[in-house]
Amino acid sequence: MGDDQASARCRVVVVGGGFGGLETVRALADAPVDVTVIDRRNHHLFQPLLYQVATASLNPSEIAAPIRRILRQQANAEVFLGNVVGVDRASRKVLLLDGEVEYDYLVLAAGVTHSYFGHDEWARYAPGLKTITDALEMRRRIFIAFEAAEREGHPGRRDAWLTFVIVGAGPTGVEMAGALAEIARRTLRSDFRHIDPRSARIILVEGAPRVLPAMRERLSVKARAQLVKLGVQVRTDSQVTSIDETGVSIGEDHISARTVLWAAGVSASPLAGTLGVPLDRAGRVLVNPDLTLPGDDRIYVIGDLASITQKGKPVPGVAPAAMQQGKHAGLNIERANEGLKPEPFHYRDKGTMATIGRAAGVADIGGLRLSGALAWLCWLLVHIWFLIGFRNRFVVMLEWARSYLTYEKQARLITGEVENLLLEPEAAAPTRPDGGA
Amino acid sequence: MGDDQASARCRVVVVGGGFGGLETVRALADAPVDVTVIDRRNHHLFQPLLYQVATASLNPSEIAAPIRRILRQQANAEVFLGNVVGVDRASRKVLLLDGEVEYDYLVLAAGVTHSYFGHDEWARYAPGLKTITDALEMRRRIFIAFEAAEREGHPGRRDAWLTFVIVGAGPTGVEMAGALAEIARRTLRSDFRHIDPRSARIILVEGAPRVLPAMRERLSVKARAQLVKLGVQVRTDSQVTSIDETGVSIGEDHISARTVLWAAGVSASPLAGTLGVPLDRAGRVLVNPDLTLPGDDRIYVIGDLASITQKGKPVPGVAPAAMQQGKHAGLNIERANEGLKPEPFHYRDKGTMATIGRAAGVADIGGLRLSGALAWLCWLLVHIWFLIGFRNRFVVMLEWARSYLTYEKQARLITGEVENLLLEPEAAAPTRPDGGA
Repeated sequence: MGDDQASARCRVVVVGGGFGGLETVRALADAPVDVTVIDRRNHHLFQPLLYQVATASLNPSEIAAPIRRILRQQANAEVFLGNVVGVDRASRKVLLLDGEVEYDYLVLAAGVTHSYFGHDEWARYAPGLKTITDALEMRRRIFIAFEAAEREGHPGRRDAWLTFVIVGAGPTGVEMAGALAEIARRTLRSDFRHIDPRSARIILVEGAPRVLPAMRERLSVKARAQLVKLGVQVRTDSQVTSIDETGVSIGEDHISARTVLWAAGVSASPLAGTLGVPLDRAGRVLVNPDLTLPGDDRIYVIGDLASITQKGKPVPGVAPAAMQQGKHAGLNIERANEGLKPEPFHYRDKGTMATIGRAAGVADIGGLRLSGALAWLCWLLVHIWFLIGFRNRFVVMLEWARSYLTYEKQARLITGEVENLLLEPEAAAPTRPDGGA
Repeated sequence: MGDDQASARCRVVVVGGGFGGLETVRALADAPVDVTVIDRRNHHLFQPLLYQVATASLNPSEIAAPIRRILRQQANAEVFLGNVVGVDRASRKVLLLDGEVEYDYLVLAAGVTHSYFGHDEWARYAPGLKTITDALEMRRRIFIAFEAAEREGHPGRRDAWLTFVIVGAGPTGVEMAGALAEIARRTLRSDFRHIDPRSARIILVEGAPRVLPAMRERLSVKARAQLVKLGVQVRTDSQVTSIDETGVSIGEDHISARTVLWAAGVSASPLAGTLGVPLDRAGRVLVNPDLTLPGDDRIYVIGDLASITQKGKPVPGVAPAAMQQGKHAGLNIERANEGLKPEPFHYRDKGTMATIGRAAGVADIGGLRLSGALAWLCWLLVHIWFLIGFRNRFVVMLEWARSYLTYEKQARLITGEVENLLLEPEAAAPTRPDGGA
């Protein structure tokens, strides 16, 4: 794209600056191509730690960094802040809300958003966790709930403010539940005068028969035991049938709760639907073995947006898979640009892990199955290691150490102002907890 | 308030958990009273550093801490999150949007908000800086402007994106201008491919004849010289007559600018207007010498909400003045509770200072007038010292040290998504910078 002159260099456009997209850009660093990354956010996000922003352990900037800064040194890469709405395959253009960008090769790495299984009306009551804005909204709801309980005089309504339901017991749900239990049992313990935060109920609801359904059964059992020990109520085999301002229904059973957090379904970026190719049930693109779009070898689809099966098992929607695919797409584009045939992608499973509160967790790495403190330590090291490139690894380590030693949460801020704390949902006449009003 | 039993203890209600309000609460720590702090935010804010959040040097949680946590150890204090809308003086009740709280003594420390001198329509185009939400909005606009300039092909429109106008050259305006100059000249220097961030124009507009009009003239001259050295265009004696989506007008002169930041007027919280007492021009309560409300010795008004003159000079709206008043109100309430007469307030001026970018600033402390690096160091030490109680003094120091050494800004995040970057305000057909579209 060479700034002021027409250029014959191969133009690669990457949509999405997540784990997959950035790996593609890096893989092309020394190739004779010009790369344009387009994202509608200016930052790359270390998604596996987003729940720590939601639970006030970390600041947004500790797990996010400007894409522009990450790629500062890569001379053949430029970054555009923009919102991609479609692709014109005939004329090889990416269509933005406010412009268009031409490509020779296109890599789609737009990821997923949360999905409410056809119940979009639940979104209002049960926010999901994909962006920093989402995390700050969850944080706001969690801490507002304790504030409202402190002021609420009616026992039933107070209990509803002190009940937290997390829907979905995958890694995010399990990690959220553990962190919430820690907040209620330890962090806030001495901060209130009219409520005991330790009496808060944290309920983890999962439709499958066990928590962490993607992991081995033995680790699910251990994870559940660790959650219960932290005081989390675990309800497996429980399909949520309704969510509204009063709480969550599981069939006939209703849980009165003012705070519901969504950690269940995801579906692919709507961009997949604009391509005119077959999608899987979650809306992801069924890609060729070399990660190209069926019928168009100029377009690669990677990461959570791609559906691909290997040895009869789907490649999971996790960061390591996205990174491997990103790198592979970059190398395939370089091959294609040199007139060589692209090669099929092979996924190398590096294992999975989840953390459950302080010094507890489960990990499944190759043949190794860990649980408890060792799994937690393992999780910690891997996550700090991959924060490379965020430059604030040291600050994050420091915060974790402090948080671990003091149970303190540095980022307990509710941003924005509070209008009516107690008037919704029933417009009840609020009273002072001591009946003074 | 004693939780479950009727209590005859004197009830003190403090509205506002800023510098003034917190000092009142602390002054009453050992008094036989029950204190309730009401704030519509859950955090106390270290306002003097808010511009560093706006310019991405610090994270919100590094300059804010939950009021609840600050007062955790004070057994006779409780904290309510709530929005105060008025006072019923006859029945001694504070009226909230969603309830009411009885008092024996009331301390109003609700502070100020920004004021557009009767031009509320400017608020949309020129956000002010009073809350964390304000600071994040300013940050968003600053970094979006560079992103939009990178994508904008039209030279005139690009220049408008690269022009930043700061209205008001008090300490906040001067500090903002210096920080913005540093961002443009150093932080972003290598991050773009189509624009040179160093070409950004930063224009500081002030109606008075000199910058920092509240400080001695000699220091104003030095501050101006330091700003000019940083590349800031300083326009004094310049009254803004209009602000809209195209920029700022100063009489006949129009500056095309897409980013305008407001650091000019403030006016008292609307709460002052509900009290039925005389206010000064800025809407502040003209208090008695002992800080009580005229005609009501049960109500104290302190901090930026109070207008009080000593030795012919108004007590300035700065943190040290608010803290002295807060402490004084607390002691007067203790005296009144013991049947003693309240005493008049005496302000002790500890001096003023402002920082201007890296290693530059001005300070006026007692007989001492400093400028340049020494003033900056002085500013740094004082501000770090007063971050005591935020517990993250060490993290802030670390961030400052890193930022100083690397010119890096840790918190360059634009939160939320971007829809149309280039379509407003003229719905122009956007193009790629290289004319590719």
